[in-house]
Amino acid sequence: MASNENNAQAPMFKKLALIGLGLIGSSISHAARRGGLVGEIVGSSATAATRDKAVELGLVSRCHENPADAVEGADLVILCAPVGAYKGIAEAIGPKLGPGAIVSDVGSVKAAVVRDVSPHIPDHAHFIAGHPIAGTEQSGPEAGFAELFDGRWCILTPDADCDRMALAKIESFWQKLGSRVEIMSAEHHDLVLAITSHVPHLIAFNVVNTAAHLERVTDSEVIKFSAGGFRDFTRIAASDPVMWRDVFLNNKEAVLEMLGRFSEDLVALQRAIRFGDGEALERTFAEARSVRRGIIQAGQDTAAPDFGRRKPS
Amino acid sequence: MASNENNAQAPMFKKLALIGLGLIGSSISHAARRGGLVGEIVGSSATAATRDKAVELGLVSRCHENPADAVEGADLVILCAPVGAYKGIAEAIGPKLGPGAIVSDVGSVKAAVVRDVSPHIPDHAHFIAGHPIAGTEQSGPEAGFAELFDGRWCILTPDADCDRMALAKIESFWQKLGSRVEIMSAEHHDLVLAITSHVPHLIAFNVVNTAAHLERVTDSEVIKFSAGGFRDFTRIAASDPVMWRDVFLNNKEAVLEMLGRFSEDLVALQRAIRFGDGEALERTFAEARSVRRGIIQAGQDTAAPDFGRRKPS
Repeated sequence: MASNENNAQAPMFKKLALIGLGLIGSSISHAARRGGLVGEIVGSSATAATRDKAVELGLVSRCHENPADAVEGADLVILCAPVGAYKGIAEAIGPKLGPGAIVSDVGSVKAAVVRDVSPHIPDHAHFIAGHPIAGTEQSGPEAGFAELFDGRWCILTPDADCDRMALAKIESFWQKLGSRVEIMSAEHHDLVLAITSHVPHLIAFNVVNTAAHLERVTDSEVIKFSAGGFRDFTRIAASDPVMWRDVFLNNKEAVLEMLGRFSEDLVALQRAIRFGDGEALERTFAEARSVRRGIIQAGQDTAAPDFGRRKPS
Repeated sequence: MASNENNAQAPMFKKLALIGLGLIGSSISHAARRGGLVGEIVGSSATAATRDKAVELGLVSRCHENPADAVEGADLVILCAPVGAYKGIAEAIGPKLGPGAIVSDVGSVKAAVVRDVSPHIPDHAHFIAGHPIAGTEQSGPEAGFAELFDGRWCILTPDADCDRMALAKIESFWQKLGSRVEIMSAEHHDLVLAITSHVPHLIAFNVVNTAAHLERVTDSEVIKFSAGGFRDFTRIAASDPVMWRDVFLNNKEAVLEMLGRFSEDLVALQRAIRFGDGEALERTFAEARSVRRGIIQAGQDTAAPDFGRRKPS
């Protein structure tokens, strides 16, 4: 965890450029200031309203439309835009990156990001792709908060021949933002995230839409009686549509593989229901329950009943 | 909401018998005492440890092994056991029900419950099936709390020829437990719950097990990186396996219909991913997001970021 002692020391980076200021970009700003990790923070956003809001909230001292303007003089650049925009951003900022500058990102897919960004990073700078596994269903510059990364994992997927000093520095930066850091290949990241994040989101989006298109059950009934389980799906289905579009377009193979397995398993359960095989159902459900225990023991969720929803606002 | 004024008045029921003391049974006990709604509460459970715990916690004054012993002299009986056990319970308690006694239940399916219970209720008593749409993933007598039903819906599915006074009384009872009450047919209930609760749970159980059976991704990776969406699925997949087995065995037709629609929709999304149709993906995701807004506006969930998980325990 970041401690206040950092404030008294020289910051790790003199100038941080955040390219994109949504939930993750704004949370990095809050957490970096909390830890005294950076001198100046500047930003860039394609959206005028976001630029105004980011300055108004004090997330950045200046916010540029063109990312190339934001990275000048920056020793740390973090791409926090939807991954579909990375290629254009990398092309724009490449020529402006100074010697020793570290470029990283927070995208939910990694192989496609390495493919799109690496070719545009000059030899005197360092690109180390990353992905903090943290989020809420909120988006935009007002959604960020300093605690978002506390106790969560951040995965870094450096190339085999990356600069070791740069890797150590970005690893330390994420630790001081509150995260634990794990290093793996971009390909393995994409496989792990396909099942722990991408397929769950796709399924959540899908069940919400299936419910919305029923003829014999009204939308208002779906909403009224959502506390039976459905509301948990709508929560993850409320995440940013553009960000998720880009995730699925850029992690196609792993997602299709995991979806295939999911559908196979679902057909087996469907069959057990059709033929009244109670034993198979109970066994399957009990198995799933034990995975939950592992997550609580690992500190990645809380066991509190109703998850802080006792007094709905 | 229940108010303290009730404490000063005569209780609505002299003796409440709770048949089953898991999450819902124990929460009814807490909420009924909070509202001063009942004189005495007695219970019944098939499990010795549950019987001991229920008395130790003061949920009931006595807890019987045989439900027939619990209902003697009770003017309100609520079945809170897994619905697969209802038929045997109804057979046992039927002969012991006194004149005017009201029997209700909390089961997650209703047509099968009416089929199993109604034939065993004598003419001088009244059966009105019910289902509070509230819960957590916890189970057992220690899981209950008085606020569980506050602001949530309880669906009652009375027969067309039910006793109007008994219906009014059980409706008022649920309102004083903190719920809002909706009345519909058992068949419509089962259709609505198939999509808002049963299919979401089945999908959650399924994705958790698909993840647990991967060869190239370890269980520990699944658990470590669960904050990307997966943990929300494990939460609902942690619900009681026996209760859910009985739900699927007793709401087969509606669940299979909704599963068929879900799978159809999922295949369409899968195809959009395979062919890189970003427009279709974004449109689908944006639609799902708007359903979420309706749920928050209806007070059935909170929009707080990270859902009370900011400080993981």
